[in-house]
Amino acid sequence: MIDSPIQDISAYMQELGRRARAAARELARAGTAAKNHALHAIAGRLDQQRAAIIEANQRDLAAGSAQGLDAALLDRLELTQVRIDAMIEGVQQVAALPDPVGAITDLNYRPSGIQVGRMRVPLGVIGIIYESRPNVTADAAALCIKSGNAVILRGGSESFASNQAIARCIQAGLMSAKLPEDGVQTVATTDRAAVGIMVAMPEWIDLIIPRGGKGLIERISREARVPVLKHLDGICHVYIDEYADLEKAFAIALNAKTQRYGTCNTMETLLVDVAVAQAILPRLAAAYREKGVELRGCPRTRAILPEIIPATDADWDTEYLAPILSIRVVDGLDAAIEHIARHGSAHTDAIVTEDYGRARRFLREVDSSSVMVNASTRFADGFEYGLGAEIGISTDKLHARGPVGLEGLTSQKFIVLGNGDVRV
Amino acid sequence: MIDSPIQDISAYMQELGRRARAAARELARAGTAAKNHALHAIAGRLDQQRAAIIEANQRDLAAGSAQGLDAALLDRLELTQVRIDAMIEGVQQVAALPDPVGAITDLNYRPSGIQVGRMRVPLGVIGIIYESRPNVTADAAALCIKSGNAVILRGGSESFASNQAIARCIQAGLMSAKLPEDGVQTVATTDRAAVGIMVAMPEWIDLIIPRGGKGLIERISREARVPVLKHLDGICHVYIDEYADLEKAFAIALNAKTQRYGTCNTMETLLVDVAVAQAILPRLAAAYREKGVELRGCPRTRAILPEIIPATDADWDTEYLAPILSIRVVDGLDAAIEHIARHGSAHTDAIVTEDYGRARRFLREVDSSSVMVNASTRFADGFEYGLGAEIGISTDKLHARGPVGLEGLTSQKFIVLGNGDVRV
Repeated sequence: MIDSPIQDISAYMQELGRRARAAARELARAGTAAKNHALHAIAGRLDQQRAAIIEANQRDLAAGSAQGLDAALLDRLELTQVRIDAMIEGVQQVAALPDPVGAITDLNYRPSGIQVGRMRVPLGVIGIIYESRPNVTADAAALCIKSGNAVILRGGSESFASNQAIARCIQAGLMSAKLPEDGVQTVATTDRAAVGIMVAMPEWIDLIIPRGGKGLIERISREARVPVLKHLDGICHVYIDEYADLEKAFAIALNAKTQRYGTCNTMETLLVDVAVAQAILPRLAAAYREKGVELRGCPRTRAILPEIIPATDADWDTEYLAPILSIRVVDGLDAAIEHIARHGSAHTDAIVTEDYGRARRFLREVDSSSVMVNASTRFADGFEYGLGAEIGISTDKLHARGPVGLEGLTSQKFIVLGNGDVRV
Repeated sequence: MIDSPIQDISAYMQELGRRARAAARELARAGTAAKNHALHAIAGRLDQQRAAIIEANQRDLAAGSAQGLDAALLDRLELTQVRIDAMIEGVQQVAALPDPVGAITDLNYRPSGIQVGRMRVPLGVIGIIYESRPNVTADAAALCIKSGNAVILRGGSESFASNQAIARCIQAGLMSAKLPEDGVQTVATTDRAAVGIMVAMPEWIDLIIPRGGKGLIERISREARVPVLKHLDGICHVYIDEYADLEKAFAIALNAKTQRYGTCNTMETLLVDVAVAQAILPRLAAAYREKGVELRGCPRTRAILPEIIPATDADWDTEYLAPILSIRVVDGLDAAIEHIARHGSAHTDAIVTEDYGRARRFLREVDSSSVMVNASTRFADGFEYGLGAEIGISTDKLHARGPVGLEGLTSQKFIVLGNGDVRV
């Protein structure tokens, strides 16, 4: 790890902010062609510089090993040729997305004679604070460029060299499109004080997006003087209703838990209506057991599945991110909605039912960023939703909720077209 | 002024928050008919209780006079029969607006087979902190009820009795529609500590909307641990371009300054292209003089209008809210955009031009919540924009920008409809 010889961190961060603000004005005006040119140039440069990127990554990996980072962290940190391919493809996909900036909607004449509409505009300067995965450097930069925002990237100290190598490709790409190099800046120090300063510069940064573990996000939310697009827990539920098609219920409950264990849209608690518990639980339990999923149940679940361990109160509030599932038998839709309201994290919750009225009520009454009928919670994802790519999943309600793509990096201003109109 | 005998302000505020959260869940589910019923019942009750409201208001006015409040403040505080009429009409207008809650948009099939769309949902609990004008109690409550949110209202101590009298009508209206009375609560103490506690209860309040002077808003922004929908300065500009129709320019520049002086969408600085300054300024200056507007000019303005006083650097950054106007002669569109970027408050700015390309550039490049072509800045208003009513004007970029109506009090969640779909 390289620690740059930056003496005055505060002055350094202010300078990054000042440069970002200036670049943001240029990027906001940049045309679609120039932004796409930059993205394709970045993709080309990443391809060309594979050797340098991998060499930098090897240095990070060696330092990480020497520091005793665990295997999961080292895996997330590693850049293979396949991962560089994915990174390049990601940047190209963002280039292929429609440009959200400048889109005018709802332009209508008003009784006064003026036309009033909305124009989509960049937010300005985004600050992204992330851990380990160096591909975020390219993904986040691409989304910010396309949405006309400047960005300051602060990656983890463990991926410092990798991030710098990727950032050099990005800046070369911006320059080749005659866009401001300061549109994408990385914090060139691993000093942790930089984060505290970064989240407290509302004059230079319009939105902070933390990507990482709960500890990071909680620290940033606590210290921030800038709005934060937060993603906290993903305690997702599937509720199997009395009127569920049990084949669909089986497939969804299995997929939502076992398709991947470590993702925020993985089901952590299965709710089963008492009317179908006996019919579905033994078959599901066998399938989970085969996948190696540990089951924890409420007393009524254990009456059907006596071999599983009891769930404690803490289980209902836990995001396992692991092959563990808590199961609760509930008395109908209201009890399921109540459980989700009390224990859920407002991330993603699904009902399995063939009953129209219950599906309709679940959709309306469950207050989560994604609410689903007869689909696996694992679909809660920017790519699956057609956003093209996501910068994160917001569990906040303001500004953006759920997977956040290009649109979440923009805002809308009002535009008014008149012909000399005055107010009477 | 009544100061309630509340001993433990913190416990009291927590209890308000807890009740609001419970009511918010009920209000989020409430149907359009029930919400409209409540609003009509509130309007009826306000009409019925005119005498009690005016009596309470007289007590506030007497206490205010005794405390030496200035005439402008006492005027804002006063409730006349005409103002009560307007308040009642405002509530009825909100009842007539379409219900935003539950609206589903962009529901499309994805290649995976699922349908993905968005459903508009309430934010939850809104906290509104306001000064003097008691009509805000009814306006804000109506908008929150219609948008399915619970609200905690904290009015100024000078309007305490008036606000309580209005709040009683609102709660009676909610109850007659079988909606939770706690959907609209007022803080029943004038203790200033209540504000500090209120803005730091993210577990109970989802959004704080301050309505009042700059001092209030700055204090709240500083102390808040809850997102704040801010409205800071309105330093609005009109730029008269070289290719302006001078008749339109005259009408707009006069209206934007003189139609009302104390509003945030009033023009504070007039920018005039050097090419038309000689042609328009003498005529405009005469019209302003007739209205009693004090003019302050840059050196080039004073070369044309030698009788006016010089503008200092501070003038370009001042929201006068008074019959004062600063005038600057600029070298074309770029200089105008640069002046607005440097000195404006991103509230509302207008260009007067017949040139298509310049209008197009101004709309795109000026980063304000409202950007106008050939229209008076005074149009920047929720009613004029067709939002029906506004809870405030946001000069923030996140979540809502410009006049905020019902939609700004809501968010969108993703909904996913499947048929047993699982992710592969």
